[in-house]
Amino acid sequence: MAPHLVQPGWRFWRQAACTLGASVQHRTWAGTSRIPRLSSPWGATATSPRVYRSGFSTSPRAPEVMLTRERYPVKRLPFSVVSGEDLAAFERIVPGRVITDPEVLEASNVDWLRTVRGSSVLLLRPRTTEEVSHILRHCHERNLAVNPQGGNTGMVGGSVPVFDEVILSTALMNQVISFHNMSGTLVCQAGCVLEDLSRHVEERGFVMPLDLGAKGSCHIGGNVATNAGGLRFLRYGSLHGTVLGLEAVLADGTVLNCLSTLRKDNTGYDLKQLFIGSEGTLGVITAVSILCPPKPRAVSVAFLGCPGFSEVLQTFTTCKGLLGEILSAYEFMDAECMWLVTHHLRLASPVQESPFYVLIETSGSRAGHDAEKLNDFLEQVLSSGLVTDGTVATDHLKVKALWALRERISEALSRDGYVYKYDLSLPTERLYDLVTDLRVRLGPRAKHVVGYGHLGDGNLHLNVTSEAFSPSVLGTLEPYVYEWTAEQRGSVSAEHGLGFKKRGVLGYSKPPEALRLMRQLKALLDPKGILNPYKTLPAQA
Amino acid sequence: MAPHLVQPGWRFWRQAACTLGASVQHRTWAGTSRIPRLSSPWGATATSPRVYRSGFSTSPRAPEVMLTRERYPVKRLPFSVVSGEDLAAFERIVPGRVITDPEVLEASNVDWLRTVRGSSVLLLRPRTTEEVSHILRHCHERNLAVNPQGGNTGMVGGSVPVFDEVILSTALMNQVISFHNMSGTLVCQAGCVLEDLSRHVEERGFVMPLDLGAKGSCHIGGNVATNAGGLRFLRYGSLHGTVLGLEAVLADGTVLNCLSTLRKDNTGYDLKQLFIGSEGTLGVITAVSILCPPKPRAVSVAFLGCPGFSEVLQTFTTCKGLLGEILSAYEFMDAECMWLVTHHLRLASPVQESPFYVLIETSGSRAGHDAEKLNDFLEQVLSSGLVTDGTVATDHLKVKALWALRERISEALSRDGYVYKYDLSLPTERLYDLVTDLRVRLGPRAKHVVGYGHLGDGNLHLNVTSEAFSPSVLGTLEPYVYEWTAEQRGSVSAEHGLGFKKRGVLGYSKPPEALRLMRQLKALLDPKGILNPYKTLPAQA
Repeated sequence: MAPHLVQPGWRFWRQAACTLGASVQHRTWAGTSRIPRLSSPWGATATSPRVYRSGFSTSPRAPEVMLTRERYPVKRLPFSVVSGEDLAAFERIVPGRVITDPEVLEASNVDWLRTVRGSSVLLLRPRTTEEVSHILRHCHERNLAVNPQGGNTGMVGGSVPVFDEVILSTALMNQVISFHNMSGTLVCQAGCVLEDLSRHVEERGFVMPLDLGAKGSCHIGGNVATNAGGLRFLRYGSLHGTVLGLEAVLADGTVLNCLSTLRKDNTGYDLKQLFIGSEGTLGVITAVSILCPPKPRAVSVAFLGCPGFSEVLQTFTTCKGLLGEILSAYEFMDAECMWLVTHHLRLASPVQESPFYVLIETSGSRAGHDAEKLNDFLEQVLSSGLVTDGTVATDHLKVKALWALRERISEALSRDGYVYKYDLSLPTERLYDLVTDLRVRLGPRAKHVVGYGHLGDGNLHLNVTSEAFSPSVLGTLEPYVYEWTAEQRGSVSAEHGLGFKKRGVLGYSKPPEALRLMRQLKALLDPKGILNPYKTLPAQA
Repeated sequence: MAPHLVQPGWRFWRQAACTLGASVQHRTWAGTSRIPRLSSPWGATATSPRVYRSGFSTSPRAPEVMLTRERYPVKRLPFSVVSGEDLAAFERIVPGRVITDPEVLEASNVDWLRTVRGSSVLLLRPRTTEEVSHILRHCHERNLAVNPQGGNTGMVGGSVPVFDEVILSTALMNQVISFHNMSGTLVCQAGCVLEDLSRHVEERGFVMPLDLGAKGSCHIGGNVATNAGGLRFLRYGSLHGTVLGLEAVLADGTVLNCLSTLRKDNTGYDLKQLFIGSEGTLGVITAVSILCPPKPRAVSVAFLGCPGFSEVLQTFTTCKGLLGEILSAYEFMDAECMWLVTHHLRLASPVQESPFYVLIETSGSRAGHDAEKLNDFLEQVLSSGLVTDGTVATDHLKVKALWALRERISEALSRDGYVYKYDLSLPTERLYDLVTDLRVRLGPRAKHVVGYGHLGDGNLHLNVTSEAFSPSVLGTLEPYVYEWTAEQRGSVSAEHGLGFKKRGVLGYSKPPEALRLMRQLKALLDPKGILNPYKTLPAQA
């Protein structure tokens, strides 16, 4: 079939999208923080200027977050307590960068979701790998627990202390070390902010292989430590494939330099893989080398309405066939998600009300070819009734505005009430069943039960809101959600990791033999257990 | 610039390519083997029928290969020796699949390059993971060393015993377990032959994310254990990214089931990564789950002549810009390589004699768009003088014939004399300097010094031939080649692994801290050291 113009309704909505950017709200984060960027996880979701953590509070004083040790049944392990001698030793290692001011520490003790809160009295801000090594050697000798911290944008309480762990921030380790123009290999310190790196490589004709809502705050070291997925996963794959090398400091201060810039290197075991996704529990990542793909010359986003989840799936199959190698994202959200972003954030929907919406991004090297492919695809899904309405944007700002509808769902949820968050991998065809199932089970106790996420990767973000925290709602959700996921052989943490809050559910996705080997690896690399304790692995019985 | 027809010389050579397939030679391997497929590593390089190990001998009796323990200074470790009781125990575990016939064992004791030879007296052929588990439990208890063996197509002597290790073959573990049509996820046993898997998934509209010359013999388990690179690496990346899960049996018989089919799973440490590229020294891979990309609708191959290596590099840059997302391979070979394949294998060159040749493959979803991109690219490189001659093929058989010129270089080298093989990762711009440098250093002592390989991945295959093995040539090559590579911060084994033959050079690409951690991991997972001993890690002083 030759490409021709899409249906009239289509074009009407295409125009609507052009003015969508105007409705994006700009707020500033009012929390106290002297740590640069620490409080702006939403940087990527708005056009300009940045939208900050507006989901939680616009008042000058955010309500106090309950201490983790009071809210959760967790017992402090017998680590030492920071002494005056320790402070003096750290002052020698990182002079002027030993922070004990409680006001500054507050922002590093609380996670950005404001659900967990540690009571650390010490924040260290090294600039070099050597300083990190000296700090860890001291902590190892003194049996002091350490909480490595990047941009503190994690979703599972992995980036803040549980008790009084020394916070080791990578915020000042923010130097680009090198960029190779032919291969697109970036080498940088762990504390570089993802958005800054994106800008750096885009100026040179490349893009970062990962992108996520928190890009304005998150550190690349934290991304790698979490094995962050995000919005470009479908196209560029996992960090296990795109990270070419890394440097990590082990618990005893040993510097492990695996900072290779080679695409291929089969000399012995691939040690860097151990640290990707280990949430700072096996070593502190101090630098990374990452392969950046060439910047696409043309990017288009289609935002479409679908009459049912079955149509969302069929649209995905059609899209893979017709868009092929230019498909770079396939995201979905349900009608309740759209209600939340239009209601709480005053974003305007660019398409008619539909039970489901999908966002499709194409990235290619030739705009004309991409447009032809996209038009053929749209023609097919519209004529077959898989899609009932839609809009397309190619202009950078309009593309961002369409992305904001999807990226700001989490922010909108936070404004809706207390949020129960689940990040699941499930077989694509069963992905939404859990959402409808839970709506029935929870009934009016839930304000909203929503499903959205990276459908192209089989990754569902299931979120439930209630007026306030409710043990009854939680009891209905857990362990039900985990058991349901385990039955489907899914993952109870697709991309967020386990951190502190989810470490107890590892067993739903991994067999006992795997857990045993994980514990052995932890004991091998960190025999005293000082690195990010109480995280990733379940508490020992 | 609008696309227009390429230069006349171009079209002439395009025709030549159409008849190229006719010149491919078909030979059969005359060695003795009762192991299915064991002796056909060249299956992928010819059209049909398969071309077998013709590089070594067409006479009924291949010359005897020297025993590894006699050729190399290696000492047997104090493992037990297989007893009558052991044989009886194995017969209970894998009845009828306990092979002691020396004639059959011969093919499993010798590597296909015929450079190393073990003296195992026992070959076991389990069908199930449970059988592998029972075998390893017995070996662990009895302190018997084990040599896991897939298709025995490795390049570094990793797949055959060094002394009398029990050979554990995956040849009968060749079942596809499942294939998911929506996601393209294949789950199969470790002994599936890559070419069979390719056929299986291609019938369902997908392709395997890896392809290599040995596809007709190599097992997927061996590919994963070696972290094989191959011809599709540029497009689909490393197995660290495309392998979604695996099952491995540990040294003590423990089955570690990490056979996930999920694209995303951040529940704890990613244990499967440990086994990818560990050459069977940390566990025996029994099953894998792998993500298959959709089968491209259109594949084209351009075979081009370049006047110099600088032009090869500039052509690569141009090609990345103009072909973008459809570029799926960028291979190069020098004039001596072309001489070898035309002289020893009687292949016909489809282009005029040139100092360098590049093979560019495009894979896309729309033939018309791909052709336009390719034509624009060709016009640019021809008009700018980067390329002086070339041919293009889109027909499947002609595409294979062009690929054969590149894929059969290794075979042609084997016919040229004794071959010194190096598989290096180097900064792309310095990739060929080592070849010209060595030609000068070796002078007439070398028959040929050739460079070819996966330029798009920074991967050089450096090969030197001499009439017979010469300690003087070897002394000139080593450690010079490794030192040169280390100076460039390259890898002394890009994709072949270390196995037995290269394990001593690990230190050129990895620091002492990394080697120490590798040894600790080996001791943790295989405390008795029974799994593929004398491989991967350097001998202890």
